[in-house]
Amino acid sequence: MKKLPLVAITMGDPSGVGPEVCLKAVRSSRVLRGCVPLIVGDLKVLRLHAKKMRLPGRLVPVSPEVLEGAALEGTALEGTGPSGVTPVLDLANVAARDRVFGRVRASLGRAAGAYIEVAVRLTRAGRVAAMATGPIHKEAFQAGGYPFPGHTELLAHLLGEGKPVMMLAHGRMRIAHLSTHCSLREALRRVKRRRILYVGRLLARTLERLDGRPPRIAVAGLNPHAGENGLFGAEEASEIAPAVGDLRAEGIDAEGPEPPDTVFAKLRGGQYG
Amino acid sequence: MKKLPLVAITMGDPSGVGPEVCLKAVRSSRVLRGCVPLIVGDLKVLRLHAKKMRLPGRLVPVSPEVLEGAALEGTALEGTGPSGVTPVLDLANVAARDRVFGRVRASLGRAAGAYIEVAVRLTRAGRVAAMATGPIHKEAFQAGGYPFPGHTELLAHLLGEGKPVMMLAHGRMRIAHLSTHCSLREALRRVKRRRILYVGRLLARTLERLDGRPPRIAVAGLNPHAGENGLFGAEEASEIAPAVGDLRAEGIDAEGPEPPDTVFAKLRGGQYG
Repeated sequence: MKKLPLVAITMGDPSGVGPEVCLKAVRSSRVLRGCVPLIVGDLKVLRLHAKKMRLPGRLVPVSPEVLEGAALEGTALEGTGPSGVTPVLDLANVAARDRVFGRVRASLGRAAGAYIEVAVRLTRAGRVAAMATGPIHKEAFQAGGYPFPGHTELLAHLLGEGKPVMMLAHGRMRIAHLSTHCSLREALRRVKRRRILYVGRLLARTLERLDGRPPRIAVAGLNPHAGENGLFGAEEASEIAPAVGDLRAEGIDAEGPEPPDTVFAKLRGGQYG
Repeated sequence: MKKLPLVAITMGDPSGVGPEVCLKAVRSSRVLRGCVPLIVGDLKVLRLHAKKMRLPGRLVPVSPEVLEGAALEGTALEGTGPSGVTPVLDLANVAARDRVFGRVRASLGRAAGAYIEVAVRLTRAGRVAAMATGPIHKEAFQAGGYPFPGHTELLAHLLGEGKPVMMLAHGRMRIAHLSTHCSLREALRRVKRRRILYVGRLLARTLERLDGRPPRIAVAGLNPHAGENGLFGAEEASEIAPAVGDLRAEGIDAEGPEPPDTVFAKLRGGQYG
């Protein structure tokens, strides 16, 4: 039998849908074909939900000493499966004493942040192969002492990275964003040659590390028909095309600006990657 | 047998994919379940394509007197079907003498415009129940004497309508646009209370005529999460919400601004219409 990688899953805000989503994930045969999940969260909250959901199998605590380097093996990882055992790294000590649902509380935001911090420590130490994150409540998160708009920025902070870029992956598709949560007006302002160059370089480097070969990158245009030669907007000519030229001059196989309404069809068709 | 409505289909630019697309449409059993198609175009061009495509059935000319009120019946409409007969209103006289493919020519743009003008006359006179349009080449179209960005504006001009609004329909979904082909920067400028009110009123009136009952309309926000209470943009509060209030004050069942990333899922789920 192939040894599956261990993946830490943070439970997200204890008051939100995170616990339920995590529990459904760790019972999904699709998830279990690819990894052994380890939930980082609050065991009591998880058990409350599991009971309500009539979920099969057991949730068993993993020794917190795993954080100090103890082996992540033994009973907790035996027999994991759809109706088997799911290991939980129980951080009840950092969560709110009161277990409420559907509420925005600083204590719960603090707990959600602590799960992420612990998962990052496990990942950096190589004790898990990767981490996945359950949903946080942005307001509770900030009230809980995490002055970040979301996961991406907290992860960047914990890893000492200056300018994080979010990349989505689905099947063979990978999509990096020039901007994420901001107004559309602000997103337009961020369409700058330097920024596109920065994101393109980082994406090329990351995909080469992931796939072991240099990627082929399409840069989407901003306007309908990628501006139709200036008829529907100027950013393609003034910012995007020059940035694509810069990337190509660095030996990165970039093309574009591609019409944003067709680039995803081409991506799905396997033209990039 | 139910009498099917007659639908005029304009052939589009004779040099483009229009003739081929029209021919495939009129041989599609899905199309033929719903209507009797009448192609408005150039019979010789259509026959050239039909031969290359080894299309079954025959293309037969309909008397041009149909435009003057002659009955749209007789042999041409007998036996229409997937491998049967398709009536064609042949406007070869307005098309270019040279039948070229893949070229941008003023004469071809003029012909494509003439097909639309004729189809509008047939529709207005009630001689066909509706019209569908094959693709035009915008540059040839304008060179051919039609100073319009596209079909919508030419139709508005022919019908004497001042400010046309494009509505897409797919299954039970209907989507009206606040702006269509323009830069994203310009699209942002068009997010104005008055404009939303105009489009909303027109959409409500149109859907009530189509469906025989007042519709339920969702107004999409502009920014991520519909602005998340001003965190990601101001247009929801300054323009969109007031316009929704205006529509409601007029008795139109409008709601929003809805987050633009979830409104389509709700629309598909049947929450509006």
